[in-house]
Amino acid sequence: MDKQQLFENIKRKKSFLCVGLDTDIKKIPEHLLKEEDPIFAFNKAIIDATADLCIAYKPNLAFYESMGVKGWIAFEKTVKYIKDNYPDQFIIADAKRGDIGNTSAMYARTFFEELNIDSVTVAPYMGEDSVTPFLTYEGKWVILLALTSNKGSHDFQLTEDVNGERLFEKVLRKSQEWASDDRMMYVVGATQGRAFEDIRKIVPNHFLLVPGVGAQGGSLEEVCKYGMNSTCGIIVNSSRGIIYVDKTEKFAEAARTAAQEVQAQMAEQLKAIL
Amino acid sequence: MDKQQLFENIKRKKSFLCVGLDTDIKKIPEHLLKEEDPIFAFNKAIIDATADLCIAYKPNLAFYESMGVKGWIAFEKTVKYIKDNYPDQFIIADAKRGDIGNTSAMYARTFFEELNIDSVTVAPYMGEDSVTPFLTYEGKWVILLALTSNKGSHDFQLTEDVNGERLFEKVLRKSQEWASDDRMMYVVGATQGRAFEDIRKIVPNHFLLVPGVGAQGGSLEEVCKYGMNSTCGIIVNSSRGIIYVDKTEKFAEAARTAAQEVQAQMAEQLKAIL
Repeated sequence: MDKQQLFENIKRKKSFLCVGLDTDIKKIPEHLLKEEDPIFAFNKAIIDATADLCIAYKPNLAFYESMGVKGWIAFEKTVKYIKDNYPDQFIIADAKRGDIGNTSAMYARTFFEELNIDSVTVAPYMGEDSVTPFLTYEGKWVILLALTSNKGSHDFQLTEDVNGERLFEKVLRKSQEWASDDRMMYVVGATQGRAFEDIRKIVPNHFLLVPGVGAQGGSLEEVCKYGMNSTCGIIVNSSRGIIYVDKTEKFAEAARTAAQEVQAQMAEQLKAIL
Repeated sequence: MDKQQLFENIKRKKSFLCVGLDTDIKKIPEHLLKEEDPIFAFNKAIIDATADLCIAYKPNLAFYESMGVKGWIAFEKTVKYIKDNYPDQFIIADAKRGDIGNTSAMYARTFFEELNIDSVTVAPYMGEDSVTPFLTYEGKWVILLALTSNKGSHDFQLTEDVNGERLFEKVLRKSQEWASDDRMMYVVGATQGRAFEDIRKIVPNHFLLVPGVGAQGGSLEEVCKYGMNSTCGIIVNSSRGIIYVDKTEKFAEAARTAAQEVQAQMAEQLKAIL
């Protein structure tokens, strides 16, 4: 999927919502545990209930790996279900990978070749040759960690170098040498507020993947005010705030209602550019 | 396993070798492809051929994930095989994970609770709360990326802050607030040469996991000269230089010979401290 297609989906659905599939066997409704594959059953219901309201799904690999082989089966089935039934959805493997070249190449093969996923989140600490193997697949994206939503983002990401450039700014600047805004996005936490202004000075045209609205305390309004650009430029993720609002048999309906609320707010924000 | 046990194993075996199980279906001997689980068959043979010569095994998760469910099965079987047959081996899940707290906690559960692995490599970019969930398991270790062996290590890890402290030095210094040298190690690439001197000023007593000897060009002698401390303090990994030296039916014997050569060099280096 290219940047234009993504923007077309956003305009058509009046939504830039990504639903995070952080599916935890300990948190899903109890009645699903009798299913053969409870994780997939949960995901399928959530996806069917929200697909017209969002433009992306983001399965978080940690949640699947924590269940070993069963988790991988559920992950692969989930990706295939989305691809088969909602081919306009942008799938993000939230994996935060990054390793020496030959290893990053193996991860790229997994996500892009074997699973045909659209994008993968990558950590920048190991530099250029840990990222570029992910950039060799036509139409696939790297979503590079820049300024994350957690408290620990202050430990290293904000460190200023001798020229006053903070580490996350250096990541934004340097990584533009590796790929254009049609192949690379950046993770910027919704909790970072005004930092979006600084970020837009360095990457005015890139899409940003924005986690941290909802459970983590970020504000959608603030993110839009400082982060939105003329092609929207933001994909806002919500996980716990949508998938776990209800634990009864009505969990999917409740997820739909929660997604509808967010989508309505997004439609409102999109008026500024559409 | 604690630091003292690790040192005892090093003294007993006169080796601080870690064999990297970067097992790639495209690189293993052809005759293994007719096995039900070629990856596990390869690993089992390599492990049996080298276990008395090394003190650790490091399966690289990327190689297993690239084969999806089959890869995870092979990974789990490999870990179990080592635990059952060579319980003195220190197992490193080379995963380079690191995410927001609840996600890192899921990864920790996978590696430490489900699989009973001894340690996991973690990327520091997201800071304290992305690392500490891995530190809540008694006797388990975090191996934090500090100064890696690849060319891209220069992109961000060497960036100096306003006080002249480089990023990898800040990672070493700050992370000591999170755990002692009995729970934390650091990845330092063998290609980094004299930087080991600077690193030992900050972490004199910690173990360092050192990849990059062999295929990547690092020198064992130099690593020992600048990196060894009174309890050895280094675990040197070799992957391709041991497991892929021969692709015939004699691959395991050849791996043993390669491991013997490295072990002999290590025994020589250990004379300085034993």
